[in-house]
Amino acid sequence: MQVLTISSVERNQFIDITREVKEAVRACGLCDGACLIYVPHTTCGVTINENADPDVPADMLAHLSAVVPRRADFRHGEGNSDAHIKSSLVGCSALVPVRGGAPVLGTWQAIFLCEFDGPRTRRVQIQCLAASEGRGA
Amino acid sequence: MQVLTISSVERNQFIDITREVKEAVRACGLCDGACLIYVPHTTCGVTINENADPDVPADMLAHLSAVVPRRADFRHGEGNSDAHIKSSLVGCSALVPVRGGAPVLGTWQAIFLCEFDGPRTRRVQIQCLAASEGRGA
Amino acid sequence: MQVLTISSVERNQFIDITREVKEAVRACGLCDGACLIYVPHTTCGVTINENADPDVPADMLAHLSAVVPRRADFRHGEGNSDAHIKSSLVGCSALVPVRGGAPVLGTWQAIFLCEFDGPRTRRVQIQCLAASEGRGA
Repeated sequence: MQVLTISSVERNQFIDITREVKEAVRACGLCDGACLIYVPHTTCGVTINENADPDVPADMLAHLSAVVPRRADFRHGEGNSDAHIKSSLVGCSALVPVRGGAPVLGTWQAIFLCEFDGPRTRRVQIQCLAASEGRGA
Repeated sequence: MQVLTISSVERNQFIDITREVKEAVRACGLCDGACLIYVPHTTCGVTINENADPDVPADMLAHLSAVVPRRADFRHGEGNSDAHIKSSLVGCSALVPVRGGAPVLGTWQAIFLCEFDGPRTRRVQIQCLAASEGRGA
Repeated sequence: MQVLTISSVERNQFIDITREVKEAVRACGLCDGACLIYVPHTTCGVTINENADPDVPADMLAHLSAVVPRRADFRHGEGNSDAHIKSSLVGCSALVPVRGGAPVLGTWQAIFLCEFDGPRTRRVQIQCLAASEGRGA
């Protein structure tokens, strides 16, 4: 398992970590299987989406904050219940197929660390999983 | 890894791909482990839910469109930010346990390709992962 | 694959199953890889979030019910479309990295069974997946 260290600079921010994930998979030496990208935090997440136009992650962040506003009738005293909720909506991990030692991403897909309670320094755990060795694999 | 090709006919549509996934797992020859169902696209997703009553996916699609309307204060020029947001809420993959060469789905569970910006032709990547060979596996 | 049996007592309830998952992974004997926690149901889910302050899961449940109210313009006759929608938003599984026979969770992370249509008795399937044996694994 490899661990990336990523720092955010905004409270809400999508950070493209595609390049770092590809390097981690290459370092792992995995030929075929899948790559788990996992954040051990409860106020951020991981998602896969388009990063060709920066307006796409901007629209996603803005709409998420409309659906889950920072100030609502929350009880949690730390004032970041919105970040916990966004984390569970987006999820704290992604799993990407791997072939020939590289993640099989679509043309427009980028892997984002989703910061919802920054700025903070976050860890991202990368675990490579093995493909089955069936007759058709 | 196997690839399915699935065509949608509506802009928003849930397409049941359970049968195709089962066939892909059988072809893979995987005995035990898990099956990753992954779309390499940024305006569709994959989810697991009920398909016994077609009103369930219809209610899901309608409510998702209420939470993420097509027309909002979006900046992305292509006019499909709603589809990108829905994709990250639902997720672009599902992972299903496999035993004895078959996905272990619940009685009411079906695997859906979730089209949010159709009609389009989509690819679905199926990757079989190996179970660990621990003492209790 | 191991199966937990968990009973809920409320219609909407987050049940911390971290201890049970850790025991299942230990029983599996998996050294390195990942652990899939999967519910074979369509009106509940699995998520990972904070459980140090019980107000966090309480805020999450309350806000989910605000975004997906029980009574809306739904067609499904069983009256639980909200539960199906919440299930697909949160997801019916989680995948956690495993090192040295134990799930690698963050300090504040707990694994929750998310009940959205209880009280019911639910099954949770635990499947251990193998790490790749690459040069850097």
